[in-house]
Amino acid sequence: MSVSIHPIMGLPMFRPGDDLAEALASRIAPQDGDVLVVAQKVVSKVEGRLVRLDSVTASAEADDLAAQTGKPAALCELILSESAEVMRVRKDLVIVRHRLGLVAANAGIDASNVGEADTVLLWPVDPDASAARLRVALEARFGVKLAVIVGDSLGRAWRVGTLGTAIGVSGMKPLRDRRGESDLFGRTLQATVTGVADEIAAAASLVIGEGDEGTPAAIVRGAVYDRDESARLADLVRPPHEDLFR
Amino acid sequence: MSVSIHPIMGLPMFRPGDDLAEALASRIAPQDGDVLVVAQKVVSKVEGRLVRLDSVTASAEADDLAAQTGKPAALCELILSESAEVMRVRKDLVIVRHRLGLVAANAGIDASNVGEADTVLLWPVDPDASAARLRVALEARFGVKLAVIVGDSLGRAWRVGTLGTAIGVSGMKPLRDRRGESDLFGRTLQATVTGVADEIAAAASLVIGEGDEGTPAAIVRGAVYDRDESARLADLVRPPHEDLFR
Repeated sequence: MSVSIHPIMGLPMFRPGDDLAEALASRIAPQDGDVLVVAQKVVSKVEGRLVRLDSVTASAEADDLAAQTGKPAALCELILSESAEVMRVRKDLVIVRHRLGLVAANAGIDASNVGEADTVLLWPVDPDASAARLRVALEARFGVKLAVIVGDSLGRAWRVGTLGTAIGVSGMKPLRDRRGESDLFGRTLQATVTGVADEIAAAASLVIGEGDEGTPAAIVRGAVYDRDESARLADLVRPPHEDLFR
Repeated sequence: MSVSIHPIMGLPMFRPGDDLAEALASRIAPQDGDVLVVAQKVVSKVEGRLVRLDSVTASAEADDLAAQTGKPAALCELILSESAEVMRVRKDLVIVRHRLGLVAANAGIDASNVGEADTVLLWPVDPDASAARLRVALEARFGVKLAVIVGDSLGRAWRVGTLGTAIGVSGMKPLRDRRGESDLFGRTLQATVTGVADEIAAAASLVIGEGDEGTPAAIVRGAVYDRDESARLADLVRPPHEDLFR
């Protein structure tokens, strides 16, 4: 079966308080099993996660991080407030474990496509909950079962370039566990757990624009995943005690 | 523009020496710009990269690695022979920098879908060259310009589950560098380099089977990338001196 990825065109500029589900609903005709992938940026915007840097008071710890990285102290304060643990610090680089458990540079805080100078955008407070609200609203509207992924472009430990990656999920298991199934030769698959939510987020990233395309969402049709209305993205995150790098 | 991902159905079981390009050609109708993603497994098989474990003599270093990991000493010998550097060792886990520069568990050596007991499969000697041979053969056959990715399912540093990932590429830049372009508000994008070859490999992985589906290849249509006939996958690999974890 083929998989197709359809950008959702013609969405407006979003502002805090806008009804994202309603804006999406008027531009899609979803089918059972479709996965809606929405860029974190628009989810954060409608949820009011914009912060003006000049409204932030930097702590001594933030001043210290600013000195090590060359980043503004107010941004460092926000990074620290969003983080459970600072993992790596270098000139121009801060990698943290976000309070959600996910590992990301700058705690996922972003300044592009925000639309106001000296304003940055934090991740949603609970991206799984954001995805669930969209899923429930759109399922009710269209009478179909959907999955929703909140996606962002994240860096990798060993590779250059970002990859579209899930930071929140609803309606699907983020992992597809195929251990116990057979391979072509009847040999039991040993270690085949696929990060299917991340594969779908990466696929959607092929049509979700980072620049001036204005296409912050996509429908992925035909992907195989396990439906689960209570699964959370944390199922896919390597817990700190299994961290490979400490 | 939409992106579609089409599994290539009906491919035979491959054996060393088989003509992979010919087998693919009889089952596809590629268009200009299409990306062919082929699972490493079939590329390695036709290139004869099968090794019987009982043909391998383990060194003292391999015996030591076997004791630390619980893996067979012969497998450890092969992992070491494929590696430039051992990065992390634990019970049941070896992460290395492959001699190609890529970081992978077990140096990418795999035992599933190999079809013979106690036989494992190494990565192609030069996956970029494997991709280039397929690209040149199929471009000549069909009179179109293509890109080819050799993909494998690799683990990640901070997340559970594998992700379809490029280990060889031909005909495209593996990175899409958008720095200097504008965002929706005219602000210059600062850090937008996308690992587009990996996003395409992840997308293809949604239809490429790990188990008994027998669909080791896919055509990805509609993805935006920069054509480059001399680009190499190493362009996408973080060099050792920029390693975030030493």
